[in-house]
Formats: sequence, C-alpha cells, structure tokens
Amino acid sequence: MIDKKETVTAAFVIIGDEILSGRTEDKNLNFLAKNLTEFGIALREVRVVSDIEEEIIKAVNEVKTRFDYVFTSGGIGPTHDDITALSIAKAFNDELIQNKEATEILEKHYGSSNVNEARLKMAFVPKKASLLDNPVSSAPGFRIGNVFVMAGVPKIFQAMYEAAKKELIAGKKVKSLEIKTTLTESIIAKDLENLQNKYKQVTMGSYPFEDGTSLVFRSQDYDALENTVQEMTELLERIKAN
Amino acid sequence: MIDKKETVTAAFVIIGDEILSGRTEDKNLNFLAKNLTEFGIALREVRVVSDIEEEIIKAVNEVKTRFDYVFTSGGIGPTHDDITALSIAKAFNDELIQNKEATEILEKHYGSSNVNEARLKMAFVPKKASLLDNPVSSAPGFRIGNVFVMAGVPKIFQAMYEAAKKELIAGKKVKSLEIKTTLTESIIAKDLENLQNKYKQVTMGSYPFEDGTSLVFRSQDYDALENTVQEMTELLERIKAN
Repeated sequence: MIDKKETVTAAFVIIGDEILSGRTEDKNLNFLAKNLTEFGIALREVRVVSDIEEEIIKAVNEVKTRFDYVFTSGGIGPTHDDITALSIAKAFNDELIQNKEATEILEKHYGSSNVNEARLKMAFVPKKASLLDNPVSSAPGFRIGNVFVMAGVPKIFQAMYEAAKKELIAGKKVKSLEIKTTLTESIIAKDLENLQNKYKQVTMGSYPFEDGTSLVFRSQDYDALENTVQEMTELLERIKAN
Repeated sequence: MIDKKETVTAAFVIIGDEILSGRTEDKNLNFLAKNLTEFGIALREVRVVSDIEEEIIKAVNEVKTRFDYVFTSGGIGPTHDDITALSIAKAFNDELIQNKEATEILEKHYGSSNVNEARLKMAFVPKKASLLDNPVSSAPGFRIGNVFVMAGVPKIFQAMYEAAKKELIAGKKVKSLEIKTTLTESIIAKDLENLQNKYKQVTMGSYPFEDGTSLVFRSQDYDALENTVQEMTELLERIKAN
C-alpha cells in the first residue's frame, strides 16, 4: 500500500522571454526532471513565463500551494530585466533587502572595489530568504519557503540544484521499468489497457518510436511493478507467437 | 505607435508524464517558439502537465481564455494513456464522437480490415472539432475553438503545425536584433537600464555567455528598435574606450 505522504511533489517555473521567443532552448527542465525523479520527488507541473512581474507572481503563487517544492530558473542576474528576486519577494509579501552574506560573497569574488551597483543588485534577496551556494560564478540563488530560486544558465542552475538538494526531503522513489518491442502501439493497446486496469498503482505509458513501441511502467509499489513487467512480457510473447 | 490588436498571443500545453519524469526531452517547445515568433505570434506561456484528465482540463481552460491561440502536444495516440482528446472535449463541454473523415483517413492508411479498436480510438475527436492533417502517420490532430491539438512525436508535431499554420492569423512580427559584446553584464547594466527607460516599446534582454554578454532587443516598433541598437552600439564603444 502506498501512503500518500510518501509522495513528494514539485513544480518548476522557467522565467524567460528568451525561451518563449525560441532564441534559447531550455536545458534545465530535463536535468531537473531526471534528478528529482532519481531523488524521489515527483515533478508534476512546469510553467514557462515571461519576464513580467505579474506573470511570475501569478505562476509562483499558483504552484507554491499545490506542490511541496517549487524551483525557478532565470532572471537573477545584474541587469534591469532580472526581476525574479523582487517578484518572488512580492509573491511572499516580503521585501527585498541587501543580504549581508551575499554582499560578502560578491565582494570576495569581485574584489570589494569592483562591486558596482549592478553587481550589488545580486545581493538583494527577500528578507526571509536563505542563500543557495553558487560555486560557478558566486552570485547566490536563494530559498524562501518552499521555493528555490536558481539561475537560468545551465551550469549554474545545476550547481545550485546541488545546493538545494541538501535541503530537500525525498519521498518514496517512483521506479521505472521499460519494455521495448517491435510491435506497434495499436496491436498492444487492448492488453496494455487490461493490465492497467489490473494494476492501478502502476502508471503505464506507451510511446511509439521509429521501429516499434516503448512501454514504460512507473510505480512506488515495486512488487506490483515487477509483476506488471513480467505479465506484459508474457503477453507480448503470446501476441508475437500468434 | 503600437496598436494592441497588432499583438497576437499563444500558449503551449505539453501533455506528458514522460517529459515530467525526464525520460523524454521535449523538442517541440523550441520549434513552436521559433516558428510562432517568425510568423508573428507571441508565445506567452507554456505549461507541462501530467497525463491526468483534471490537470489537462485545468491547464487548457486557464490558457484558452487568456491567449488568442493554444497548442497542445501529446496524448493523442491509440493507447489507454492517450486521454488528450477526451480531456479537451470536456474542457469545451463537448463530447467525443467518431469523426467520419478521420475514420476514412485511418481506413485508407491501415486498410479497412486492419483498423482495430485501438486505431479507431484515434478517429474520436470532439464533436465541434475540425481535423488537422497528419502526412507523417495519418492519424489526425484537431482544432476546437482556438485550441490546436497535436501529437507529441516531434516529426508529427511539426507536420501538424504546418497544417495549423494555414488557420492562424498573424500579428505584427516582433523583430529581434542582437549585439554580442565581450563586456560583462554588470559593466553594461546601468547604460542598458537607461536605454530601456528611454525606449519602453523595446524589450531588452541581457544574457551572459562564456566570453561576454548577448544583448537582445525585441520590438514591433522597428524604428525604435534600430535606434536602440544604434545607441547601444555607440555606448559600448564608449565604455570600451574608457
């Protein structure tokens, strides 16, 4: 039996006009999806929104109450179009303050005489936030409540995820098993549906590819998962023999 | 001056557990973003949701009233986990019916004796829907109201976009100009912000890369766009000379 508390969920809010215009291809979604799945957290929803304060606030507010964790990417640099920190502060009815620790990190990285106004902007985070270490380029991400605010540049996003991970509490991992077959989806569909009705605790997905079908079985109930794959394998052999 | 009616907007709803689990990397967002931008439609929001009826209905209903067009990808195949058509029908308070034209297309493609129950499933679309041609694998997508329902497989998604495109009405294209500089973001930030305040009709984005900064200027006001780039280029030369 699966206890509902065993399932920990997350959402991802990608902030960036450059993704929506097609100029930049997002690389963070797949990284985050894989890593959260591996860690035992189920990514349940993703949104890509513009660099517009109301849009960011709306998206973050909608997902932060529905999921255990929220991750954001983008908009925490030194330029005027980096409005994520302020938007997140507003989403939490908090204010932006110059964080002492962040200031020291930036002064150490750039040299205190080189920390100009733009660079200092990156030391402004919500009052209630705690910092997320950025070993790549120093300017930190931050966490406020259940929201982790991270950079858009993939290398920095990935480094910040490592910092965030230390604060995450995983649920029971959803294990995944795959069967590849040369049979087409429509030949398997009926048997797969019957199997799905038998094992409701296993999510069964069917994905066509060039030379056949990939069947993906996912569950937190590992015994049911093994049984499903066993039965499907036998079913496929029977279909092929006919 | 920009007339507000000149701006046509869109949202994209990606339906698929396989994207959220990280098993599959989405390839359609960047394709759609680039093509819509090029065509004169502004992609304003993207959502990735699970293969869960309520999630699909919720996402589609939220975006279909806020944007001129909505595109969806995924979940229109022959297996039990393909629940997009039914979900979209429900979002429009419509019912699924066996579409005559779609049935004929499938019978022609598979041969009428080979159209089993699973394949026939792909002929069921909302009553009020019109079909979107699929030259790759025959099973059509469909349009209902302002929502275009397309396949998840990139090759098919792209073919269906070509069919959808014939029905889209473009707005004034947002032109984009880029300046690459070896200067870092924080050196440019102040001047860029001043320029943004001067040309509010131009969206200015700053993106760091390995060896410098990419400045991206986007606008429907082409004169302002040219002026902005001209002034920024001069500013950068002045900064470098200092």
